[in-house]
Amino acid sequence: MSKPSIPQGTRDFSPAEVRRRQFIFNTLRSIFELYGFQPLETPSMENLVTLTGKYGEEGDRLIFKILNNGLHEKKDAEREKLNGEWNNILSRSYSSPVVTERALRYDLTIPFARYVVMHQNDIALPFRRYQMQPVWRADRPQKGRYREFWQCDADVVGSTSLINEAELLCIYQQAFQKLNVPVTIKINSRKLLAALSELCGMSEKMMDITIAMDKLDKIGWVGVANELKERGISEDGIWQIERVINVTGTNEEKLVAFSDIMQHSPSGMEGINELSKTLAFYNELDPTASFKTTGQDTNIQIDISLARGLNYYTGVIVEVVCSHPDVKMGSIGGGGRYDDLTGLFGLKGVSGVGVSFGIDRICDVMEELKAFPEQLAEGTKAMLVNFGGENETYALQILQQLRTANIPAEIYPDASKFDKQMKYANRRGIAYVLLPGDEERQKNMVSVKNFVTGEQKMMSIAETIVLLSH
Amino acid sequence: MSKPSIPQGTRDFSPAEVRRRQFIFNTLRSIFELYGFQPLETPSMENLVTLTGKYGEEGDRLIFKILNNGLHEKKDAEREKLNGEWNNILSRSYSSPVVTERALRYDLTIPFARYVVMHQNDIALPFRRYQMQPVWRADRPQKGRYREFWQCDADVVGSTSLINEAELLCIYQQAFQKLNVPVTIKINSRKLLAALSELCGMSEKMMDITIAMDKLDKIGWVGVANELKERGISEDGIWQIERVINVTGTNEEKLVAFSDIMQHSPSGMEGINELSKTLAFYNELDPTASFKTTGQDTNIQIDISLARGLNYYTGVIVEVVCSHPDVKMGSIGGGGRYDDLTGLFGLKGVSGVGVSFGIDRICDVMEELKAFPEQLAEGTKAMLVNFGGENETYALQILQQLRTANIPAEIYPDASKFDKQMKYANRRGIAYVLLPGDEERQKNMVSVKNFVTGEQKMMSIAETIVLLSH
Repeated sequence: MSKPSIPQGTRDFSPAEVRRRQFIFNTLRSIFELYGFQPLETPSMENLVTLTGKYGEEGDRLIFKILNNGLHEKKDAEREKLNGEWNNILSRSYSSPVVTERALRYDLTIPFARYVVMHQNDIALPFRRYQMQPVWRADRPQKGRYREFWQCDADVVGSTSLINEAELLCIYQQAFQKLNVPVTIKINSRKLLAALSELCGMSEKMMDITIAMDKLDKIGWVGVANELKERGISEDGIWQIERVINVTGTNEEKLVAFSDIMQHSPSGMEGINELSKTLAFYNELDPTASFKTTGQDTNIQIDISLARGLNYYTGVIVEVVCSHPDVKMGSIGGGGRYDDLTGLFGLKGVSGVGVSFGIDRICDVMEELKAFPEQLAEGTKAMLVNFGGENETYALQILQQLRTANIPAEIYPDASKFDKQMKYANRRGIAYVLLPGDEERQKNMVSVKNFVTGEQKMMSIAETIVLLSH
Repeated sequence: MSKPSIPQGTRDFSPAEVRRRQFIFNTLRSIFELYGFQPLETPSMENLVTLTGKYGEEGDRLIFKILNNGLHEKKDAEREKLNGEWNNILSRSYSSPVVTERALRYDLTIPFARYVVMHQNDIALPFRRYQMQPVWRADRPQKGRYREFWQCDADVVGSTSLINEAELLCIYQQAFQKLNVPVTIKINSRKLLAALSELCGMSEKMMDITIAMDKLDKIGWVGVANELKERGISEDGIWQIERVINVTGTNEEKLVAFSDIMQHSPSGMEGINELSKTLAFYNELDPTASFKTTGQDTNIQIDISLARGLNYYTGVIVEVVCSHPDVKMGSIGGGGRYDDLTGLFGLKGVSGVGVSFGIDRICDVMEELKAFPEQLAEGTKAMLVNFGGENETYALQILQQLRTANIPAEIYPDASKFDKQMKYANRRGIAYVLLPGDEERQKNMVSVKNFVTGEQKMMSIAETIVLLSH
């Protein structure tokens, strides 16, 4: 028999890992609920036609497709068709419903849009939903990139108010504060990027400019300028862009400078207005009372070079990075406004705005920063040693009382050698070991050993419960 | 554009449904943790070889297989092999790793066994784990049967102590009590079923006898007797079985009667001993203090006709059914001891015992019984009406204070018509609507409308917070 293994790019989560991940999910869930967002879950499988064509050609290639069942039951005539479709698959055609009609969820956004369209008569707009589920991509696995990973999205559809943008900023702020992860939240508007291309007199080059600007962090201004040149931006255009990128200062100072540079661009002024209103709303709602967006002392920063890859964004965009100097990690969250996502499924004119949390990366950052609460490590607070016979019965009675007092506890189920039982408790990291031996039983007490300090003391069950309840 | 839809047998879970399911998951999680069980999660995908051959031929057929990616990139020589394997798939061969090397999880038991074997050096035995995840089966969908559904299992491996059986009974008892679902827990031992076949002088017929007995509830004794005859059990054998089935009374009375009938069968006496010890341990641990297994007044009942389908059980087996007279639903939980599950993956001699909760059925039963807490329906406690302008800013300030006081609240993000905003709050089922108009703002107060009673009253923000904090 060969050794069992799991597919490349997937993970088992050990008890300690599940607890850490649950901590993140619960923290986010409580914040989403506080902001009036409602939970939604969609199936792991979607019809393949729902997914294809939504993520670009590369995306189509990375969707995990499920083989139809019962293929061997097909009649001869159908088999001919099947074989034809099989040949199509081999020669680069991806959606052959007779071979594969279902596929695994690739992100949470398309299923959400599909849900809104299917349930447009049941849901009250504006609809605020959050969703925390795994997604699957057949990407080449590498450090921090998995084939099964978790997304966590919060979106509002059916409202164009910038209050939504401000609330999502608050959610980011409050979530990372609760998770003990120091962050910088970068904010921009796609309309400013559009204005930049107008400034260059090359509106049609917006995507080229965006793609080049997005690399500012990695390759610096000289690199970006070269790329802009290669992408056909004029000398004057590059100079205009440099002028905008060189704007520094507080958010207010940046907005003033942009207003000056972009005063003749309607989309520029719109973008400036969006950012300025979003920040004003945010300042009224600020949940932390310590991160107003004015002055030097804020972690929400306008960054004109922020582009966010996805084409469907049309307004304000945001990105979250960990600001701790020791942490080298890309974005751990991001989002923005999209004007017509449900249009993909035939429902036009529903604007939306959303943010996403990169659960796996957040988990990695928190481990690096030791940001998880210590008591998460082990659920069981106390283990009763099993001395067998009457002492076993006595131990069960104590156990029952501990659990009635809501103290997570267990008994070593077999009356094994003492050393073996202690070794088990030690490996599990259980804080207290309770020793119900003959003497203890006769006195109706129990010896309690603190595994950390090594201290041991005989006490009543009531005292034990008080001790363990902390 | 065709209307979007989801695959047959899968479900979207609306906000209200997610909340109800979360309530079940959280209840079970808290009980598992109280009993020292640790959470585990395994990938949705397993290598197909891990799953095939574990669930019988029917099971193999129902496993969802994932098409390998990048098939079109294969070289010509590989294509020939691919085509050959494709033909194998069409002619009933299910595991062709060049076409499909991964498959979706079919249950939680095999992945657990696989995990234990892979991590045998990292985990401390006995290992108690719980796992709550979806599984996928290509079964024909029907009422109560889905292609994506949730299992929730708790198992202990590495200990043969019957304390484990007793603790799992406690978990069932406490879980269904917390979920407000009245249940009967049937208990039996596979060893008693083995003894029955010995009594008939036909040990090799144990499975036949088991399969027939399992139908007692559905077809009555006459039906079972006929089936036994058809399956080749002798007249005397059928009489012996009838004698055992006719035993009634309390659990103690049944055990006494069985001891009398089976006194010459070693496996019979072993089975009786197992049941008797399990119930004795249970009575020490009983978490409800109301369901001791002695006398008439217990919901844990020895049922010699209980068989449980799965072949791998070897000792005590249990099954949970809802005992409410209005609820017609099969088993909502079940489990038992299996002696060598990890042997499938090369690790011999690890005994285990586990129970499973049928989440989807439990959810259905709870809806039927209206057993869910009422406040689950809606997360948001209060909605602020948006009157625009200065009143909007004032509303945001109130909103910030509500959330700081941990009250889930939202603002209608657009300054739409009053009626539209009220209609939204009503459709959402939000309990309170807050009206921050000119007068309220000038007085630094807010009008609070109770949507249930229709009452409306102007009060200070502090008073509002007190009201909404209940």
